[in-house]
Order: sequence, then C-alpha cells, then structure tokens
Amino acid sequence: MCAEGAHPHTPPARAYDPGSVAIPRSQVPLPPDATARRTVELVLGGPDEGNPFTDVELTAELSGPDGRRSVIGGFYDGSGVYRIRFLPDVAGEWSFHTNSNASSLSGIEGVVRVSPAGPDDHGIVHVDRTYHFAHADGTRYLPVGTTAYAWTHQTEDLQQQTLATLAASPFNKVRMCVFPKSYVFNTNDPPRFPFEGSLDKGWDFTHFNPAYFQALEGRIADLDAIGVQADLILFHPYDRWGFSTMDPASDDRYVRYLARRLSAYPSVWWSLANEYDLFQSKSVDDWERIARVVGENDPVGHLTSIHNCREFYNHSRPWITHCSIQRVDVYRTAENTDQWRERWGKPVVVDECGYEGDIDQGWGNISGEELTRRAWEGAVRGGYVAHGETYLNDREELWWSKGGELVGDSPARLGFLRQIIAEAPRQCIDPVPGDWDVPWGGDGDDYRLAYFGFGRPRFRNIHAPAGRRYVVDLIDTWAMTVHRLPGEYEGTFRVELPGRPYMAVRLVSREP
Amino acid sequence: MCAEGAHPHTPPARAYDPGSVAIPRSQVPLPPDATARRTVELVLGGPDEGNPFTDVELTAELSGPDGRRSVIGGFYDGSGVYRIRFLPDVAGEWSFHTNSNASSLSGIEGVVRVSPAGPDDHGIVHVDRTYHFAHADGTRYLPVGTTAYAWTHQTEDLQQQTLATLAASPFNKVRMCVFPKSYVFNTNDPPRFPFEGSLDKGWDFTHFNPAYFQALEGRIADLDAIGVQADLILFHPYDRWGFSTMDPASDDRYVRYLARRLSAYPSVWWSLANEYDLFQSKSVDDWERIARVVGENDPVGHLTSIHNCREFYNHSRPWITHCSIQRVDVYRTAENTDQWRERWGKPVVVDECGYEGDIDQGWGNISGEELTRRAWEGAVRGGYVAHGETYLNDREELWWSKGGELVGDSPARLGFLRQIIAEAPRQCIDPVPGDWDVPWGGDGDDYRLAYFGFGRPRFRNIHAPAGRRYVVDLIDTWAMTVHRLPGEYEGTFRVELPGRPYMAVRLVSREP
Repeated sequence: MCAEGAHPHTPPARAYDPGSVAIPRSQVPLPPDATARRTVELVLGGPDEGNPFTDVELTAELSGPDGRRSVIGGFYDGSGVYRIRFLPDVAGEWSFHTNSNASSLSGIEGVVRVSPAGPDDHGIVHVDRTYHFAHADGTRYLPVGTTAYAWTHQTEDLQQQTLATLAASPFNKVRMCVFPKSYVFNTNDPPRFPFEGSLDKGWDFTHFNPAYFQALEGRIADLDAIGVQADLILFHPYDRWGFSTMDPASDDRYVRYLARRLSAYPSVWWSLANEYDLFQSKSVDDWERIARVVGENDPVGHLTSIHNCREFYNHSRPWITHCSIQRVDVYRTAENTDQWRERWGKPVVVDECGYEGDIDQGWGNISGEELTRRAWEGAVRGGYVAHGETYLNDREELWWSKGGELVGDSPARLGFLRQIIAEAPRQCIDPVPGDWDVPWGGDGDDYRLAYFGFGRPRFRNIHAPAGRRYVVDLIDTWAMTVHRLPGEYEGTFRVELPGRPYMAVRLVSREP
Repeated sequence: MCAEGAHPHTPPARAYDPGSVAIPRSQVPLPPDATARRTVELVLGGPDEGNPFTDVELTAELSGPDGRRSVIGGFYDGSGVYRIRFLPDVAGEWSFHTNSNASSLSGIEGVVRVSPAGPDDHGIVHVDRTYHFAHADGTRYLPVGTTAYAWTHQTEDLQQQTLATLAASPFNKVRMCVFPKSYVFNTNDPPRFPFEGSLDKGWDFTHFNPAYFQALEGRIADLDAIGVQADLILFHPYDRWGFSTMDPASDDRYVRYLARRLSAYPSVWWSLANEYDLFQSKSVDDWERIARVVGENDPVGHLTSIHNCREFYNHSRPWITHCSIQRVDVYRTAENTDQWRERWGKPVVVDECGYEGDIDQGWGNISGEELTRRAWEGAVRGGYVAHGETYLNDREELWWSKGGELVGDSPARLGFLRQIIAEAPRQCIDPVPGDWDVPWGGDGDDYRLAYFGFGRPRFRNIHAPAGRRYVVDLIDTWAMTVHRLPGEYEGTFRVELPGRPYMAVRLVSREP
C-alpha cells in the first residue's frame, strides 16, 4: 500500500478480509469504451460478509495522462460487488491502483484507455464569468430548471411519462430528492427505500439498499441522455420515515456513500437540502459538516448549494458555488436577483419563486403569466428563475412532486426566454444601469435588453449607449414573437409599443 | 382692542388706515342662512390702496355658544373687500369682534345665529380609531381617492366634465394642485395665475390674484356638493413659472393667505407638497416652517400631510395627521401598508401606488386589475389606496392631470371595495394575524376578510377564530360579486374557490 494513496478523509482503515471475493482479481474488467467526460467504472469483487458498507474501505489512486493524481473513493454495491467510478476530463491512459483494508480489494492496478469526448459530452457544469454557467468544454449552459421532487419515487409508468415530458420540454435541470417525500399531494410510499428495514421495524442506517441507488443512477443517466442536469437534494424535511432526523454519523455515512456513487456522473449537482431552515434537528454546524463530507468524496467538484425556506443560508461560504434561492417575499421575488448577485458574488438560481398552478397555498397558485414574468425579471438582472407546476388533478399527480405531464402555459415561454438569452453575444446577460421602472440587462454596449413586466406602455423613449448604432427588436415575451424594427437607431429614440404587458426591447449593436 | 384677541402668530400689526372703506361699517352683512358645519363668511369693507395683501392685518375673535373663544384670520379679496370665514361646529349664537391695523376694519362686532347642521353636513374629516377616518359628526369616511392634479387649470368645459365624471364615480377625494402644473401631458397655460404679473415680466408674489382663488373656492364648493374632499396640494415641483422656488417669506405669505381663505371649508385637506423630496430649493426646515404657518392659520384642524417621491417624510411629526404615501418600490407597493401603520401609528393613505393607464412611465401604465389588486392589498392591511388614470388619448387629456373622462376598469372595482369595507361592523378594517401567503383583515373576532390577490387557489382551508360561528362569503373582487355559502362554519373548514385571481373570503360572526 502506498501512503499517499490513502484517502485523506476516510476513517482509519482496519484490517478486514473475510476472504470472499465475488470477482477474482485477475478478472477485473476494464471498461472497454471509456471516453472523456463520461463515467468510467471499475468493478471489483470483494467481501460480502459482515457489513461491507461500514467495514470495508476502498479507494483508488488515479493518475491521468498528464501525470495528475487523485484519490477516488469506491463503494459497495451489494452481492460482493465493489465499484470505483471516475470522470476523466481528458483522453489518454488513466492508471489506477487500489487501496483497501480488504486485502482482496487492495493493490489492484490497471490502465484505462480513455478516448476523446464525444461531440455531445460537454462535461460537468461549472461557474463561468462569476454569475453564469458553462460546461467543462466551455459550452454555455443556461439553466432552465424545473422541480419534480419525488418523481423517481413513483411508479415506473409515471417515471417514464416524466422522462418523456422532460424530453419534450425546454427544461435542462430538475430538482429532485434522493430520499422519498411525504407531503401534501405526495403521501404514497416509494417503490423501495434507501436503507434496509421498514418504518414499522425501524431502519438500519448502516445497511444501504443498493437497488435504491441503482434505480436513482438509472434515472440520472436517463436525464443525462435527454440533456437534463440532476439537481439532487440530499436532505429534505418532508419525511415520515426518519431520514431527515438521522444521527450525524448516519448522515455522513449516507452522504459519503451517495457522493462516491454519483460524483463521476457528469450531470449531477449537489443541493444539500431543500428548505434547510425547516430542519429542527440540524444546525448550521451540521450543514457545514455535511458540506465537507460532500467535498471530500467529490473529486470532480460538482456545483453545490443549499436551498432555503424563509432565511437564506450564508451563500458566501466557499463550498457554495451558486445561490439556490427560494424567494423570501411573497410579492417581490426575482426582482431582487441583482441584489443577491451583488451580495454573494455568485450565480443566482431562483429555484422557487412560486409555481404555476391552482393549489391552496400561495407558493403553488400563480399564473403562467406571473411565473414567466418572474423568470424575465430575474433574467434581465442576470439570474436564472426556475419553473414548477402545481395544478390539481384527479390523479393527485402534481408535476412539482410526482412528475407526469405538464399542462401549464409557462414552460414554452421559459424555453423562449432561454432562446433569447442564447442569442446574446456571450449567451448570458448581466444587469446594466436601468431605468427606475424598467430593468435593463446587457453585455457592455454590445447588447441591451429591457423588460417592461406588468407595465403596458404605448411607447418608450430609449436611451442607447452613446456612439453605437443598434438594431431594435420588440419582443413579446408571452406571445413569443420577435419583431425587428426597420432601420438602425442611436442615441435617444422613441419606440412605439403595443400597450400590452410582458414586452421587452432588445438593442443589438451593429458595430463588430 | 383686546389683548387676547390679537392673533398669537400674526406679525406685529402696524397702524394702517388709508381711509377708504368699500363697505361701510354699518352695513356689514350678517350671513342670513348660517348653519353648523358650513362655512360662515363675514364680508367687510376696508382699504383698497397700497397693498392690502401685505399692509392690512385683520383677525376676529370668535365666541361660540358654549363660550369657547378662538381667533380667526381674515383676508383681502380685492376691490376693498375683506372676508373672515369660520366653520361653526355647533348651532347657536356665535359672536365676533374684529381687530385690525386698519381702523375701518377694527372693532366691528356682531352675532351670527347658526342653525343646526343639515343632514348631509357631516363636518370635516378627522382621524378616527387611530388608522381610520370619520366626519365631525361621527359618520364614517372611507377615502376612495383619485388624482387630477391640474383639473382646475383647464378650460371651463373640461372642468365641468371632470365634475360630472366625479359625480358619477365612486371617488370621494381628489388630489389637486393649488398652483398650475407644467409637466408631461400638461404643458398648457392655466386660464389665470395666482399672482399679479406674468412669466415674461415676473411675478409680484406680494399681490395675489383674488380671481384665481375665488375660482379655486368655487371648485372646492362644487366638489363638496358631490361629496368629494379636496386634498389640496400647496406646493409641487412641476413648475415653469417659479411658484415652487419662491423665497420663504413669499411661501409663508401664500400659505397664510390660502389657509385663511380655505380653512372654513369643511371638505379641505392640506397636502403640503407633492413629491416634497424633488424640491431642490426647500429643506425639511422649510417644510416644517410651512406646516407651522398652515397650523397657525387653520383654527379648524384639517387633515394635513406631505407626499413623497422616493423618500418618506418623517410621518411621526405631530402636525402630520395621516401618511400620504407614494410607494417606494416598483413591485411591492400597498403590501407594506400594515408596516407603515405600525411605523407611524397613523392612517395610511397610499395616494400613489401606480396609475391605471398606458403611458411610457412605470408609474402610469399598470392595468386596472393590478391597481385594484393593490387597493385590496392595502385595504385588508388597514389602509386606503387611491386611484389615478393615465391612458393616452389624442386630446392629451389624461385624467391624472387634466381630469375629463375616465375610461379605465378600476374605478368601479374601487367603489365595490368601498362597499365591502362599509359592510364591516365598524365600517373599517384592521390587519389581523394572517397566513404567510394571504393577508387577513378584520375587526376582532366579529369579522374577517382574506384577500388572495394574484393567487388562484381552487380551495383553501380556513381557520376561523375559535368559539364563534360564521357565515362565509366568496367575493370576486374583479367581477364584483358576493356569493354567500350555505350554512354556518366554525373552526377549520375547507372552502372551494374558483381557481381565478382576485378572490376574497369574508367571515361574519353570527353571534351578536
């Protein structure tokens, strides 16, 4: 064993070798089709007696083609099968060397030949230009998020419907809970549970249910195949089973297990909690500790945040890559986006600003117009506002919780907004000094976008940046039309508007 | 002359008696039809040479039937005519004794027999129950305000149209400027000016134009006749003539003259300024001094406030009877009403929360739905939100400035809201502890009113105060309908709602 190969953050390993090896060392199958920016998995046979989840420690020292070294944590997947997953960022020969307190798993070496990334494999999403996102290969990522918290805990038919709906939608991120959910409009049991045991007999938090996590991984892969990032919620308070109130050691064990299983998936985001401030049994110290466990078991560095109910978490914490916001005011929601950007200096993703729907609670009964308006208010201020849908139906299948079908008016408009942003010079918008009543986004003097929201002007005097000529587009954000005005404009000029709400005006510089 | 008869706040009188008396002392006409709560006017003949506006001081010591004494300031109305007006609050014999530095005006005595107030003469409006209003006789006054800043500065035809529109409207208060207005959509000259002189040759701020003020008084009387309070704006910054930038002595002279002319009108409110914070040339000290001059020349104690643009005045000042608010946030407007009530402990009148219309500026292009929503948001929080209308038309006659006709959707809805408030047990609503997403107003446990705003619930679980039974009304605030649910309700119960915005639910206790 090599000293530097020991994972710096795993518990001290103790000798453990019951001798049972499901897959002989000589047969460790090397992945035949490894490509950069896709998950590479090593499958090892190891002990299946005792409690391998807690007794066996397994890591691999990884050396990339450029000599970079890292240590990857493995995990037990049941039936004597152990897996080590990594996400190579470049093509070439990646060599590994395992280390374990189980002798049958330790000292295994090999080389994985990684082909260049495929054209659709853009790699993980990271922060770009301080307030925005891009994939590892530099491709712009414009989040158009939605929420279906418990979609993976429904019937297979319903899950397939959800995937089909997402595939046909503009959404490219979905907030979803790892643990099952118990809340209004979602009281059904999930098909399986993450731990051995039952609600009646109690749970054994030291024994994970591999099938549970395999199913989750399958859905994450399904999402990835249709271009949807999985914004995974590690803990949530809507719980009747006790998964939100585990002891710290169990929380950490779970988070370590999950992160080791999923860190090599290119489309995963970590959301430590939904409505963290509703957990009676967890303090900020707990969340900070959990964040450390995530970081220690995620060598890739996935986007990480934590979502509030009433009070924001301190988003200036270094482990928080972006602000995952629930609006804290019923009336002024995404209009605070630019202030939040300034406050924390990070991307602002308003994951909950109210859902289109008609349920009893105010968080779930705004109109498609209002949700679209909030998305635009956030967008021109340089942020990203997400969707959710909560229309009552007889099946009690509300998209926001169970997935299924979408019936609302806002998704198409959010797709249109994404297209508008994608047409900006750098495919992103930052706030620029605006009018008192109309927010302006833009990119320097190259590009400007004004949003009139619920205002219904019949005209507007536009003050373009000096010294440039612009073409001017009238954008109806609800009708999803773009009308280019004839000619070019400079300085201050008057634009006729239709006296309808939800209009925008776009200026595109004619100079190179 | 009797020492206590000298007005404590007027400048020291100097002898002035050019000897010209328009109306001989023996012919002072006593008002033949004086009634309580109506203006009583004494008309005196006096000097018409020199500058009577500045040279002649005139007051009357007044003794009511109950022995109360007060000192009333008179004013010069041109052509040797001087007037002293007072507003008797009770019937009986009111005796007066004049005092002047003009001997022909001094020492005049008489008795005015005041009949009981007529059934429609409820007297001035004052603050009632801390946050609300009532007339002097206790009749509830529920302000449904509108704004027509410069309506009295338009053609006679247009003024008559404005009066007819108001008479047919639900409005019972209008914000209006004493001085003419120069601003977008209102650049025409007024038919007359308040001072002698002209824009070209300059104004003589020491010589008032009585015809200007007589015309204003006529319009105030016209408003009073149709039940509309005149919320008079003494200064405003939309000015090309110099009336907003007079020297302090001229400001004070003007305010003293105006207050002496109008204090005896029962339907006048004083608004020291519109958008006081836009005056470059006036400081808080100036406004405080002007407030003192108003108070010194208003023995009746009319409602007095001052209206902001971006920054609130310190509404805790004792001379401010109620908060005349312009919302300071584009998005969260009347939803702050309860906070403002708590902050200042006074009635909150949101005189500008945005106008229904379609002009270029955000303060004047919200929909009738949005204005009505803001009015309800304010109402259930115990405040009063006013109207304004700014629809473009070819005549450039926008109601908010020139008056004329109303074409919007909100006035009828504001009248409906007034009717709903009038049906409350004490004809007023105070905020009660509400839900996080739905504000509740009420009157103790006797009455509750929830407003759902832009929310569109299909049902709601209502938690009524314990120990009472209620009848429940569904109110569609936009369709202006009230639907009483069958039966009576207590405790927690579910109410089906239509899934439309702008609904309210009213609970009325069945117990006496």
